[in-house]
Amino acid sequence: MVKISPRTLSGFMELLPAPQQQMERFLQTLRETYSLYGFTPLDTPLVESAEILLAKGGGETEKQIYRFSKGDADLALRFDLTVPLAKYVALHAGELAFPFRRYQIGKVYRGERAQRGRFREFYQADIDVIGDGKLDIANEAEIPAVIYSTFTRLGLERFQIRVNNRKILNGFYAMQGLSEKAGDIMRTVDKLDKIGPEKVRICLLEDVGLSEAQADEILKFIAISGSNAQVLEQLTGYQGRNELFDLGLEELGAVVKYLAAFGVPETHFAVDLTIARGLDYYTGTVYETLMLEHPEIGSICSGGRYDNLAEYYTDRQLPGVGISIGVTRLFYVLQEQKLLNDGLNTAPAEVLVLPMTQDLTAAAEAATFLRAAGIRTQLYTEQKKFKAKMSYADKLGIPFVAFLGEDEIAQGKISLKNMQSGDQQLLTLAEAAALVQAAMADRAAGKLIRS
Amino acid sequence: MVKISPRTLSGFMELLPAPQQQMERFLQTLRETYSLYGFTPLDTPLVESAEILLAKGGGETEKQIYRFSKGDADLALRFDLTVPLAKYVALHAGELAFPFRRYQIGKVYRGERAQRGRFREFYQADIDVIGDGKLDIANEAEIPAVIYSTFTRLGLERFQIRVNNRKILNGFYAMQGLSEKAGDIMRTVDKLDKIGPEKVRICLLEDVGLSEAQADEILKFIAISGSNAQVLEQLTGYQGRNELFDLGLEELGAVVKYLAAFGVPETHFAVDLTIARGLDYYTGTVYETLMLEHPEIGSICSGGRYDNLAEYYTDRQLPGVGISIGVTRLFYVLQEQKLLNDGLNTAPAEVLVLPMTQDLTAAAEAATFLRAAGIRTQLYTEQKKFKAKMSYADKLGIPFVAFLGEDEIAQGKISLKNMQSGDQQLLTLAEAAALVQAAMADRAAGKLIRS
Repeated sequence: MVKISPRTLSGFMELLPAPQQQMERFLQTLRETYSLYGFTPLDTPLVESAEILLAKGGGETEKQIYRFSKGDADLALRFDLTVPLAKYVALHAGELAFPFRRYQIGKVYRGERAQRGRFREFYQADIDVIGDGKLDIANEAEIPAVIYSTFTRLGLERFQIRVNNRKILNGFYAMQGLSEKAGDIMRTVDKLDKIGPEKVRICLLEDVGLSEAQADEILKFIAISGSNAQVLEQLTGYQGRNELFDLGLEELGAVVKYLAAFGVPETHFAVDLTIARGLDYYTGTVYETLMLEHPEIGSICSGGRYDNLAEYYTDRQLPGVGISIGVTRLFYVLQEQKLLNDGLNTAPAEVLVLPMTQDLTAAAEAATFLRAAGIRTQLYTEQKKFKAKMSYADKLGIPFVAFLGEDEIAQGKISLKNMQSGDQQLLTLAEAAALVQAAMADRAAGKLIRS
Repeated sequence: MVKISPRTLSGFMELLPAPQQQMERFLQTLRETYSLYGFTPLDTPLVESAEILLAKGGGETEKQIYRFSKGDADLALRFDLTVPLAKYVALHAGELAFPFRRYQIGKVYRGERAQRGRFREFYQADIDVIGDGKLDIANEAEIPAVIYSTFTRLGLERFQIRVNNRKILNGFYAMQGLSEKAGDIMRTVDKLDKIGPEKVRICLLEDVGLSEAQADEILKFIAISGSNAQVLEQLTGYQGRNELFDLGLEELGAVVKYLAAFGVPETHFAVDLTIARGLDYYTGTVYETLMLEHPEIGSICSGGRYDNLAEYYTDRQLPGVGISIGVTRLFYVLQEQKLLNDGLNTAPAEVLVLPMTQDLTAAAEAATFLRAAGIRTQLYTEQKKFKAKMSYADKLGIPFVAFLGEDEIAQGKISLKNMQSGDQQLLTLAEAAALVQAAMADRAAGKLIRS
C-alpha cells in the first residue's frame, strides 16, 4: 500500500505526552482560578456563520479568517472568543442574569504567516463581565485580582499588572485640542519602551505633525511615574479642565483604592500612562501584564473596559470588561525559556504494576485497589523481559513501580520501588497506597512555572 | 446601524450556563476516570491536511467532511479522533513508549443532515491502547473496567457492557463455509433485537440466500445465552474445528476471567454473540454499552480491538484496542430524559457577597478571604435595590448570600443566608467559610446522572 506521509500542519501546536500533561495543568489552573472568582464556563461552537463572525468587518480579520462553505452555508472558524460571546449574549440575553460573568477557554484560528512561535490554531482563555445598560467600576477594580491570582497560582512571581484608563488619555488629548490626532499619538507613544523619549519626540514632531509645545506636553504627561499614590497625585494637576479626564481619574482612583481589599500587592501593580491598547473599543480601564524578567515577550494578559459588546447584533447596550490570555503562545514561550517546572509528574500514572507471573489476577486486583484509592495506576500487560519492563517505566517517568511475583502474592503484598530514590519496600496495598498518596500530595503542591 | 440577527448554526450545541456546568462536570469526570487508568491526555489540531484525514477514503466520510482551502492548503476538520491518533502515533512513534495509552476528549465535525438530537459538532471521548507489533489480551480485558468505572462515577447504575469477539464470529462463519457472506449475515443478525428471530431467519433465507440448515445453525449459535460461564461452556462445543474460532474463544475466556480482578461485577457485563460492530477493522474483542432502562438510545460506549491502527501512514504494525463515548449526544439524551441530577450546584459561585454600603472595601475583603479558602465567590457590584440583588442570587441559584452592612462591618462579621433553607446567621469569615465548605462537600458527593 502506498503510504501517506504523516504530518501536522505548520502553525498547529501538537505536543508530546509529557508537555501535554503540563499544558493540561495550565488549563486546569485557569479553569479553577476563573471559577473561584464566580465566572461560569461557556463553550460555543468553533464554527459560526461567516456573516456573524465578520459583522464588524475590517481588514486583517477578513484576510486571516478560515472561511468555507458547506452546502449553502457560508461558514468560518472563530478567530477570537469575543465575537462569539457578543453573539451568545445578544442571542440569549433574556435567559441570562446580569452582570453576566463568563470564562471561556478554547481554540481560535487565524491564518497568519507561518513562523516560529506564531500559531494559526491557539488557545485563548478569556473572562468577561457584561452588564445590562450599566456596569459598576468595581468590576474594573476586581480584574487585577483575577490576573494576580491566575499567574500566582501558575507559579509566576516576577510580573506586573499595568493599568491605565482610556478616559484619562482621551480627556488629556481633548484638553490639548489633539483629539483627532489621538490615535496617531498613542501609536507613537506605544513605542516609548523600544525607542526612548527622544525618538518619540521626533516622531511626534515629524510624523504626527505636532508643535514643539504639544510634543513637550505629551512627553511630560507620559513621564509621570512613581508609586500609584504619586501618579494619582500628579494627575490631579490636570483636573477641572475636561469632564472625561476627571471621570477617568475618578475611575482610576477607585481601581487603585480597592487593590489591597482584592488582595493585589502594590509590588505587582502599576499605573502606566503609556498603555493604550490597540483596539478602538476600549473606553475605560485597560490592562497589560508583563513578565519582569522577560519584557521582550510583551503582554501576557491584556484587556479592558468597553461600552458596547454586541452592537452589531442588538440595540441593547451591553458594557463590559474583560481580559484574555494567549495560552498557546505563552506556553510555547515558557517552554522555550525553560521556565516550566520539570518536578511535576508528567507521566500517565503514579504507579506501574509489574506482574512477574503469567496469571495477571493478583496484579489486576492490585491495580484495582490503587485506582479505588484515587491513584493513577497502569498495569503493565506485555510479556517482555524484566529489563524492557523497567525501561518502559523509566522512559515514561512513572514514579513508582509495584512488583508482584509469587512471593508477594503468597504474602498478599507488593514490592513498591521508588524509581527516583531506588528504595524498595514490601508493603500491603493499603500501606503502598498511603505512601504513594503522600508523595503525590507533595508533588501536586509544586507549581507549573518556576520563578 | 443595521443589526445582524444573532444565531447559532443548527446541529451545533450551545448550552446556557447551568447545563454547561453539568457538561463541564461530565467532561471532568471523564478526564479523571480515564487518567486513573493510566491514560495520558492528548490534544491534536481540529484542522488537518485533507490528504491525511481522507487517507482511507470511503463514501460517507468524504460526503460529510468539512473540507476547505486556505492559500494552497487543502484542509479539513477532523471527523473522529481515531484518524488523528493514527497520524500522531505514526508521526511520533520514535518518541513514544509502547504500549501507548492515550485519552482524547475533543470536538469532531460531520456535516450530517440536520435533525433533532443529531449534531454536526460534537464531543467524542476516546481511549486507546496501542502496541508496537503486539498487544496482550490483558488490555482487552481491562477495557470493561474503564467503561464500568466511567459510568458508575457519572452516576449511572442500570447499564450493561456487552462483549463479543470477532475471531469467534469469523471462525464460526468459516466453519459453516460462509466467510464470504459473513458481512451480510452479521448485518442481518444485528437486527435481531428489533425484528425477532423469525424475521431474521426469513432475511437469512431470502435476502442473504442461505440454506435452511445454514440459517438454523446461525440462529442456534446466536441464541446461545446464560451466564458468562454458561455461554463459554456452550461455545466449547464448537472447539477444534477452526483455529481462529479457538483463538477467539481463548481470548473471550481471558476477558471474562479477569473481570472480577478488574472490579467489574457480573451484573454489568454479558457476553453477547449478536454484537459485531459495523467497522471492518475490528479483529478481536468488541464492546457495546446499553442503558438498561433506555435500550432505544443504542450503545453509549463502543469499540474494540484492531490490528493495524496506522496502515495508511506507516509500515509499522500498530495493533490496539479502544472505546469511544459520543458525549454530546449522550448529554443531549440525558437532558431530554431528565436524567441529570439537578441537586448539583450549577451556579457560577457558592457565595454571593452583597455589600449594603457605598464603599466596597469590606465586601471585597470578605470575597478575597472566601476565595483564599477555595470557595467560588462573587462580589455583587451594582447599585440596585435590595430586591433586585436578591433576585439575582435566586435566578443564578447561588446557594449562599453574605450580607455586609454597617453592623456587620463594625463587628467584623458577615450575615450568611442559606438561600434554600432561609436560615441566616451572623458569623466570622472563618466560621462562614467552614459552613460553606461543608455544604460544598455534601453537594460535590452527588453524581451527574441520577439513576
